Amino acid sequence: MAEKKLGGAGLRGQVAGKTALSTVGVSGSGLTYRGYDVKDLAECCTFEEVAYLILKGELPNQAQLDEYKAALKGMRGLPQALKEVLERIPADAHPMDVMRTGCSMLGNLEGEDDFSQQEAKADRLLAAFPSIICYWYRYSHDGVRIETETDDDSMGAHFLHMLRGEKPNALHEQVMNVSLILYAEHEFNASTFTARVCASTLSDLFSCVTGAIGSLRGPLHGGANEAAMELIERFSNADEAEKELLGMLERKEKIMGFGHAIYRESDPRNVIIKAWSEKLAADVGDTALYPVSVRCEEVMWREKKLFCNADFFHASAYHFMGIPTKLFTPIFVMSRLTGWAAHVFEQRADNRIIRPSAEYTGPEPRHVTPIEQR
Amino acid sequence: MAEKKLGGAGLRGQVAGKTALSTVGVSGSGLTYRGYDVKDLAECCTFEEVAYLILKGELPNQAQLDEYKAALKGMRGLPQALKEVLERIPADAHPMDVMRTGCSMLGNLEGEDDFSQQEAKADRLLAAFPSIICYWYRYSHDGVRIETETDDDSMGAHFLHMLRGEKPNALHEQVMNVSLILYAEHEFNASTFTARVCASTLSDLFSCVTGAIGSLRGPLHGGANEAAMELIERFSNADEAEKELLGMLERKEKIMGFGHAIYRESDPRNVIIKAWSEKLAADVGDTALYPVSVRCEEVMWREKKLFCNADFFHASAYHFMGIPTKLFTPIFVMSRLTGWAAHVFEQRADNRIIRPSAEYTGPEPRHVTPIEQR
Repeated sequence: MAEKKLGGAGLRGQVAGKTALSTVGVSGSGLTYRGYDVKDLAECCTFEEVAYLILKGELPNQAQLDEYKAALKGMRGLPQALKEVLERIPADAHPMDVMRTGCSMLGNLEGEDDFSQQEAKADRLLAAFPSIICYWYRYSHDGVRIETETDDDSMGAHFLHMLRGEKPNALHEQVMNVSLILYAEHEFNASTFTARVCASTLSDLFSCVTGAIGSLRGPLHGGANEAAMELIERFSNADEAEKELLGMLERKEKIMGFGHAIYRESDPRNVIIKAWSEKLAADVGDTALYPVSVRCEEVMWREKKLFCNADFFHASAYHFMGIPTKLFTPIFVMSRLTGWAAHVFEQRADNRIIRPSAEYTGPEPRHVTPIEQR
Repeated sequence: MAEKKLGGAGLRGQVAGKTALSTVGVSGSGLTYRGYDVKDLAECCTFEEVAYLILKGELPNQAQLDEYKAALKGMRGLPQALKEVLERIPADAHPMDVMRTGCSMLGNLEGEDDFSQQEAKADRLLAAFPSIICYWYRYSHDGVRIETETDDDSMGAHFLHMLRGEKPNALHEQVMNVSLILYAEHEFNASTFTARVCASTLSDLFSCVTGAIGSLRGPLHGGANEAAMELIERFSNADEAEKELLGMLERKEKIMGFGHAIYRESDPRNVIIKAWSEKLAADVGDTALYPVSVRCEEVMWREKKLFCNADFFHASAYHFMGIPTKLFTPIFVMSRLTGWAAHVFEQRADNRIIRPSAEYTGPEPRHVTPIEQR
């Protein structure tokens, strides 16, 4: 009976399937992708290596990586019909709605005919997502039709190049790499679970990913980095941040970017992105946003024993690279696609349709009263 | 431990939340919407009354129904940008991809800004879905831009009118009514559960419904009526059907439209739609498809004790009304939207993010080998 209740409340602790992709918080704080600590991956690898690891099972050797990167590079272009759809989405649309619609539309034009195409279609989406969001953003905000087929070496550079109209420097490219690695995979979170439920009906990959984007859009899931940005940009210095934050805590206001549903001690991704945010702050000569962020971290730990999650220092890091706040969650999509797709492959390989039960709380059986007597 | 395993296999029997909307197979065979037997609803009500019941909690009186139908009638038009998107989807696209994209695009143009709009947005989708699928179908297949704002009294008539270019007769309108009632709601099936997982992140209604469409697209979920059609149209008479079916059973081929994950004795929807299929057969003078269907039912019961589910006689019924097979599952969407939306409202009213656990089966912790040594 107690178990039933637990299941009812968000299936917390209920095993809904198997995965070989990641462990989250096994030691209370760790995150591994296919056995590798995310810290090691962020230090030693590019995002394309990690995408290869997640989607194909093992880290690539140099020849495999070169081939993979060349293949992705060749898939950055968008079909004309998709561009015309993106041009019809207004500038004030929610960027996650744009991602969802772009993914869904691509499924009409280049659908997955059978599961033998699954890896090719995942790679296509991986290459196309930065193009989709930047094409829409630049068209709707700047009125320009950008070229999405660039020769940038990495996905992070490709994104920044399209967004800002010039190739990024090495530091920015590296931070994008790290950021995309950190967001790539996270076990049975709500968006990934959405993708697996969809996959369990044997639906196509585009449907699974479209559904996952819709779930990531929710403020309880993706979007915490955007909320963190809105928080820190309110404060002009660390002392002001501390004072205001204490007030918010006293008023029991919700503060985003802290704590985690699974991690108990710390989020292993925080220390990594925090270090890069510090480097970027030094690079741009920031004297406000980074110290504000650090003070927020100190106050939240001191007052509430709440630690920064992956999202908190992502806010300042993205901001220092000139990325508009509303594009933070779409970057999450560009990265997490790897985890979503790999979970779809797993679900398909050992499938049973996901169909839980409900506890009925409605009316007892009753008879229809003719409408004239209601 | 046994429970854990059960959970792993599709969460069968695991309670994932509460609902006041329906009971499925409680007595082994019954289906109720908010306490009313679906048989009574299909006999006494129009689809609009049932949609009102599901979305707003109680059956409407005449004044409420009139107002509701007038409101829905006023929302049949599509924004120009959505029409232009639909015109860019090729004729050979999967109609469920069209529904998914149409829903997602509408979210860009008329999004749900906050949850106070949820009922209005659900009504809008209910009114717009027949327009979306017919606009695309007639444009891509016949090259015409149809008028979607008709004065048809019911949603079923509106759909048939747009599809076939003329108002349907009373029999066809009535069958559409019944069919839409039968498909409206079915507890925590995979598409509805997709919508609830998405809703649990507090995402918007368009995301929830877009995701649900993607799950319904899967051949293990929606689409069984299309598969049933493909089966029965192979046979020119009942004896041939019996002979071929026995061969398929011997070769252990999958036969769609029979049996059910939840119902044990019969699907309560079958007897209802079967009776209407018989009436339609008499009306069109059919001497093949209906007798073939009946013989399939007899053979499957005699040989395998498998009963027809809701989908099987829907195939012949839709076919007799001139509906192309590939539009069968989109009709399911037009109807089930009511259940999906009502489940989203329920999830929002008592929410905890749906985030189950996974059983890890991957590699032990390992160290990253530098790429030149791989």
